[in-house]
Amino acid sequence: MVKKYLDKISLADAINKLKNNFKSSRTDIEKIKTAEAEGRITARGIKALRSAPDYYAAAMDGIAVKARMTEGASERNPVQLKSGLDAVEVDTGDPIPEQFNSVIKIEEVNQIDRNTYSIEKGVPPWHNIRSIGESAVKGNLLVPAAQRLKDYDIGALLEAGVVEVEVYQKPQITIIPTGDELIEAAGTPEKGELVEFNSQMVRAALRKWGAKVKISEIIPDQKQLIEKALIEAAVTSDIIIILSGSSAGRGDYTIDILREKGEILFHGVNIMPGKPLIAAEVETKPVFGLPGYPLSAWLDNHLFIRELIYQLQGVEAPSFNQIEAKVNRKVTSDIGLEEFLRVNLIFDTNDQYTAIPLKRGSSAMESILKADGIMRIAENKEGMHSGDKAPVILLKERNKIKNDLLLIGSHDLSLDLIRNQLRKRGYNFDLKLQTVGSMAGLTALRRNESQLAGAHLLDPETGEYNIKHLKDLFKGSKMVILNLVHRKQGLYLKKGNPKGISNINDLIDKDVNYVNRQRGAGTRVLFDYLLEQNDIAPVQINGYTKEEFTHIAAAAAVGRGSADAALGIRAAAEVMDVDFLPLAEEKYDLIFREEILDYPQIQDLINLIKQEEIKNKIENLGGYQCRKTGEIRILDL
Amino acid sequence: MVKKYLDKISLADAINKLKNNFKSSRTDIEKIKTAEAEGRITARGIKALRSAPDYYAAAMDGIAVKARMTEGASERNPVQLKSGLDAVEVDTGDPIPEQFNSVIKIEEVNQIDRNTYSIEKGVPPWHNIRSIGESAVKGNLLVPAAQRLKDYDIGALLEAGVVEVEVYQKPQITIIPTGDELIEAAGTPEKGELVEFNSQMVRAALRKWGAKVKISEIIPDQKQLIEKALIEAAVTSDIIIILSGSSAGRGDYTIDILREKGEILFHGVNIMPGKPLIAAEVETKPVFGLPGYPLSAWLDNHLFIRELIYQLQGVEAPSFNQIEAKVNRKVTSDIGLEEFLRVNLIFDTNDQYTAIPLKRGSSAMESILKADGIMRIAENKEGMHSGDKAPVILLKERNKIKNDLLLIGSHDLSLDLIRNQLRKRGYNFDLKLQTVGSMAGLTALRRNESQLAGAHLLDPETGEYNIKHLKDLFKGSKMVILNLVHRKQGLYLKKGNPKGISNINDLIDKDVNYVNRQRGAGTRVLFDYLLEQNDIAPVQINGYTKEEFTHIAAAAAVGRGSADAALGIRAAAEVMDVDFLPLAEEKYDLIFREEILDYPQIQDLINLIKQEEIKNKIENLGGYQCRKTGEIRILDL
Repeated sequence: MVKKYLDKISLADAINKLKNNFKSSRTDIEKIKTAEAEGRITARGIKALRSAPDYYAAAMDGIAVKARMTEGASERNPVQLKSGLDAVEVDTGDPIPEQFNSVIKIEEVNQIDRNTYSIEKGVPPWHNIRSIGESAVKGNLLVPAAQRLKDYDIGALLEAGVVEVEVYQKPQITIIPTGDELIEAAGTPEKGELVEFNSQMVRAALRKWGAKVKISEIIPDQKQLIEKALIEAAVTSDIIIILSGSSAGRGDYTIDILREKGEILFHGVNIMPGKPLIAAEVETKPVFGLPGYPLSAWLDNHLFIRELIYQLQGVEAPSFNQIEAKVNRKVTSDIGLEEFLRVNLIFDTNDQYTAIPLKRGSSAMESILKADGIMRIAENKEGMHSGDKAPVILLKERNKIKNDLLLIGSHDLSLDLIRNQLRKRGYNFDLKLQTVGSMAGLTALRRNESQLAGAHLLDPETGEYNIKHLKDLFKGSKMVILNLVHRKQGLYLKKGNPKGISNINDLIDKDVNYVNRQRGAGTRVLFDYLLEQNDIAPVQINGYTKEEFTHIAAAAAVGRGSADAALGIRAAAEVMDVDFLPLAEEKYDLIFREEILDYPQIQDLINLIKQEEIKNKIENLGGYQCRKTGEIRILDL
Repeated sequence: MVKKYLDKISLADAINKLKNNFKSSRTDIEKIKTAEAEGRITARGIKALRSAPDYYAAAMDGIAVKARMTEGASERNPVQLKSGLDAVEVDTGDPIPEQFNSVIKIEEVNQIDRNTYSIEKGVPPWHNIRSIGESAVKGNLLVPAAQRLKDYDIGALLEAGVVEVEVYQKPQITIIPTGDELIEAAGTPEKGELVEFNSQMVRAALRKWGAKVKISEIIPDQKQLIEKALIEAAVTSDIIIILSGSSAGRGDYTIDILREKGEILFHGVNIMPGKPLIAAEVETKPVFGLPGYPLSAWLDNHLFIRELIYQLQGVEAPSFNQIEAKVNRKVTSDIGLEEFLRVNLIFDTNDQYTAIPLKRGSSAMESILKADGIMRIAENKEGMHSGDKAPVILLKERNKIKNDLLLIGSHDLSLDLIRNQLRKRGYNFDLKLQTVGSMAGLTALRRNESQLAGAHLLDPETGEYNIKHLKDLFKGSKMVILNLVHRKQGLYLKKGNPKGISNINDLIDKDVNYVNRQRGAGTRVLFDYLLEQNDIAPVQINGYTKEEFTHIAAAAAVGRGSADAALGIRAAAEVMDVDFLPLAEEKYDLIFREEILDYPQIQDLINLIKQEEIKNKIENLGGYQCRKTGEIRILDL
């Protein structure tokens, strides 16, 4: 059973093919009010219809004079001028009466009496006088064709008498969502149903780029219906987008329809995500079949449709805001595919950006929510080695990224709360979180991929948390342990505890499905410790090898019934509405290098978590104790 | 007579004072549809209301299987699976039936018959299966407070069941234009009237920054009326802007009203342009009195009001897009004033930007239309020396600036036409023009402030154009002379030639006012040559010392009656509707260094002007001959 892709092509070839195919397509030209034209693109060059100023005008508040009469004026020999005859008061912008040819500014004029001015400095002719056409000259080209109008263009055009401008119409785009399994975003999905949100996400971007967008109703997987919607849209639209119109499973008719009704430009591009894209021409209009995975749809929209929106208005799309970043680890990537990897960025003291990849997978919206940028690994590269550099398209403002703190480590719900409080209180940085488990967090910190790690790693021999692991990993460094919380760990159990689990020994049961946390997670270390204390071998636990990556995911697995028990923190049990059987209390710390202890952001963070109000909020999450929160220990390792 | 400024303060102090004064002011919070929230700023953190996926789902098109049954499958020992029993077909996103725990992708499945699949490779459990919460986990913070929502946020929020979000309302701003001399932008001004366009320009920017804007009718200079408009606006608006509300001439009541009705925060900031700004608080609302000069109003709007629009929604304004640029000449600037100078930028082979200042004067809109950026000369600097660097706020996209060509030199109308044609035909660069006269153009080229000069400098001894001047200025260099046009020079005369001027000798008349071009302009060189040939001394010409800087300005001076005659090219006479008495034909060339001859932009330019269609368009402007247009001569000097 093979996929129906046509031969895939490279990103550059695909973009070129698309742009060339619609090279001379433009939206219609419309005449609109200049005052409403900011951001619109001129269809023709615009000339000044009048000069501004149209007469000699005062450039200052002052008196208009005959320059020759002011010659030789000085402090010792001031010159007196008769008001009305030798001089007349003018405000900025006032026309200069014919008999005068210069202006003395108000600060340099002494009024002797109602009819007499005295000046102590002469002026040359045409001083402080605006020439005709100083600002705009009738007939001069003010704005060329194919230019996006700025606020100051609006001002200059109106000044020069241009009250209407000819611009390209905003491209009209129709989005057609297709799929039997889809329901409107406002609905609540049953099992097997998917909420259709790609259309809204794609529309938000299209509007930002200056398009007008119509979203059709969701069309079921029936060839005739999709065909009808497409042909109707082609009449009224400049671009048509068929959503989930590019995959190759059962019932994906888009490619067949496009082949029959028009011409396929390409199907499949050598990029990841975004590979299964279709571009076609139907009734002279560009039609795109976007993949169903949201990150694929998002990327294809940004790489392809965006280009066309600008081209239809006669201009090039703006370049992406891009920087270079290095990686501090090996990053794999398929050769033959240009990969677009969501990354966090940190800015180091050498003025360099380090990129830290987030989860792959084009279905995980969380990875783009958390990302600072999208790293591009070229098609001809088999991944990157530590130290290699690659371009990163920024999703956030450069200066903001520089201020942020990145925490990589174990998951704790109080971190969300703290992050939100920092934003709410107007701190000028974000606390960004990557959830990977305690050990992976410390490893990232050692690789200088983060400013902070979050860990709760128990040393069974001493009963201490994190210290042993820091000694192993950071020999020769000074490290800070900042206590965040003490928290309850326990078992998530189905509501009402149908299997009657009352202690860890009850997990040894053929009929009990456990779900574990991933290797290196503090919770897994704790679970192993609890098993050992109770003389239980891992093989006795049904599901020991099945892993979830966060407390919430573990609680969700229990809540949804795919597991009977999992170990985790209380707060997640409350969110997922499962029972919670407390087994232990543990300590959760933030860890960072001593050299950043005096950074303003670190100090802000420490001061925030020390506040009683914040501690109360954390304890209210359930299962938390803040008796040591904010306490610092510095280790010289 | 002294100005009414309060003590002026520095830019940084003024911004701080403003932001601190309205530190806790926020617009109201409103609940809007998530789908419409792109670009809006969250008032609270937003948590996922459901997990996505909410069940185990296929990550690929393929067949769902029991992993254990696939163990040991290989090419030599394929495993056969019964459809419906051992395996079931699934599309991406489909829920995995309870009895299965892994997915084999469609490309790796052979269908033997209707009921049998064959596979040649086993899969581990949970392969190609999306976990519960892979994209979003119920209860997790998706977006913190005080964050601008992006297109992908919209997608993620909808996926997680968040169909409404709480955001800050767009700030409501009222603009009140004041001034007896103002008329609406759509009208035609009489002498002494000014078109009121600042309100439209300011509104365009405010809207771009996310505000809702109301412009009141123009209020005459009457204290009571302005006061009434202000108090009314304070009820409904988050910010009030009084236009031309900051100067100190007669009839500018704003400062008095603000002092009586509220509290002045500052009046006058140490910046140029933009100095006479008023910021005040009235009825808890920020009120600005913006200067009347458009570039002052523009800059104050960008430096102050923009900050407040963002702060009212709980976030920092984005940083300006800024680069560093050096200057290749001395640039004067007043100490004690931070100066914002409109500049063109060129990008040299050393990856450095050079800034070339445009006209000063806050009334000249043309200078900002032509600018690539705004150079900031710090308050404590007395200008810059050649080689010094300063920050430049970019008005255009960095990559576009790098492609552009900058031509500094004599003015010719065909250049506007060529510039517009380049844009119209979709070339990816702009031909930027700074009009300064032939000699100044060559000097700029020598200082590497431009790629191209435009010159028509006659050598009276040889009758040749430009060659002698190039020999003087570019010894040791290889230079290219590219002929642009031959064109008629002649006298602009009032319509109907009331003074009966029929040759150059008629200018020697007490009653004839001539207006000259500036020193270094090719037209002035020609005029001097014509005077000499006719044995006329400059002092015999009434108005010889009065200078205009372009053909059009010279023709305008004649058209408006402030001069009786001026020398210039025919095309400008047609634009300004004055008579034209031809006196000579001259050659106008483009000049550049030989090393850029093979630049694509230069080649594009040469190819364009060689086209018959373009030559015809130029000749149709009047007074032009294109018999040598596009011809190249390379000089090894």
